[in-house]
Amino acid sequence: MQLLKERILRDGKVKEGNVLKVDSFLNHRMDISLMQEIGKEFRRRFPQPEINKILTIEASGIGIAAIAAQYFNNADVVFAKKTKSKNLDGELYTVQVFSFTRGVPFEVEVSKKYLDQDDCVLIIDDFLANGQALKGLMEIVRQSGARLAGCGIVIEKGFQEGGKLLREQGVNLQSLAIVDSIDNGAITFRE
Amino acid sequence: MQLLKERILRDGKVKEGNVLKVDSFLNHRMDISLMQEIGKEFRRRFPQPEINKILTIEASGIGIAAIAAQYFNNADVVFAKKTKSKNLDGELYTVQVFSFTRGVPFEVEVSKKYLDQDDCVLIIDDFLANGQALKGLMEIVRQSGARLAGCGIVIEKGFQEGGKLLREQGVNLQSLAIVDSIDNGAITFRE
Repeated sequence: MQLLKERILRDGKVKEGNVLKVDSFLNHRMDISLMQEIGKEFRRRFPQPEINKILTIEASGIGIAAIAAQYFNNADVVFAKKTKSKNLDGELYTVQVFSFTRGVPFEVEVSKKYLDQDDCVLIIDDFLANGQALKGLMEIVRQSGARLAGCGIVIEKGFQEGGKLLREQGVNLQSLAIVDSIDNGAITFRE
Repeated sequence: MQLLKERILRDGKVKEGNVLKVDSFLNHRMDISLMQEIGKEFRRRFPQPEINKILTIEASGIGIAAIAAQYFNNADVVFAKKTKSKNLDGELYTVQVFSFTRGVPFEVEVSKKYLDQDDCVLIIDDFLANGQALKGLMEIVRQSGARLAGCGIVIEKGFQEGGKLLREQGVNLQSLAIVDSIDNGAITFRE
């Protein structure tokens, strides 16, 4: 997605350790006009009319998924929760995800009420690196018996292995921008 | 807002301890069509043309704010972060908020880059009870020097004191539904 790549080049910041920060338009301040274009692009890449739910994970995924849902006939957005909430029903799909950032595992959960075998689900998230969070969301879809239409990612770090492994498994993974390398602050995208 | 009150009566669940759960349309599964009506209602209640930023707090506020921003000429959404992130700039507005739910204080932070004296800010959040989170966001706006246009809340628990105290201080606080009591599962709204 050309508009997104240009924005990353213009406003993305490369921090030490070649960490790409897109706080200024994606995951702290959100540029709503850009989110709308991202939503339209996801629809173009996932045209399946049967998609009726968008699944994401708190926190940064929520705004992107909410805006995008408007281009999917206002499909429901379900956001997975990261911390163990006081759910007295006990009616949860749960999965443990390992966070490389924090060095610890955390629990991801979705209420069984909001996802089941009648659903066709598109997973959306802001970033894909090693793919742990995405694999967790896919496992929740599997537990629910819903059909997975695919996974839409805004920015994939192509130099980490998550995307490669998922594509090898046949997942319909669409990343709007794939960063193949960050070298001394210079960002190179995959063609 | 009549549509919202009807939805709370239809789909809200009252759990033990008179806790109102609106997971099914607001803060776990999001009904996007309802979010759009909520966004339009916020615009009706905050018509000031100078509003250029919407400030909220992760996680549930983000989707509501993102959809609402579209009715404010795609104003930028800034979402405050709850955990201490690895911000090496050190350029943050921070405030400590006490969580009655968890019984502990937590840090709320916003990068100084995304809020300053040239901004006119509308704060949006899903719930208002004792008002701790909202007071924290207002304190961040105060630190930034920005103008506060007001605070828009989806559901206020009118039987807790947050809303009352803020209105007494002259805050332009607009809650789309105010629950005055929950008694044996029966919800009463303020007129």
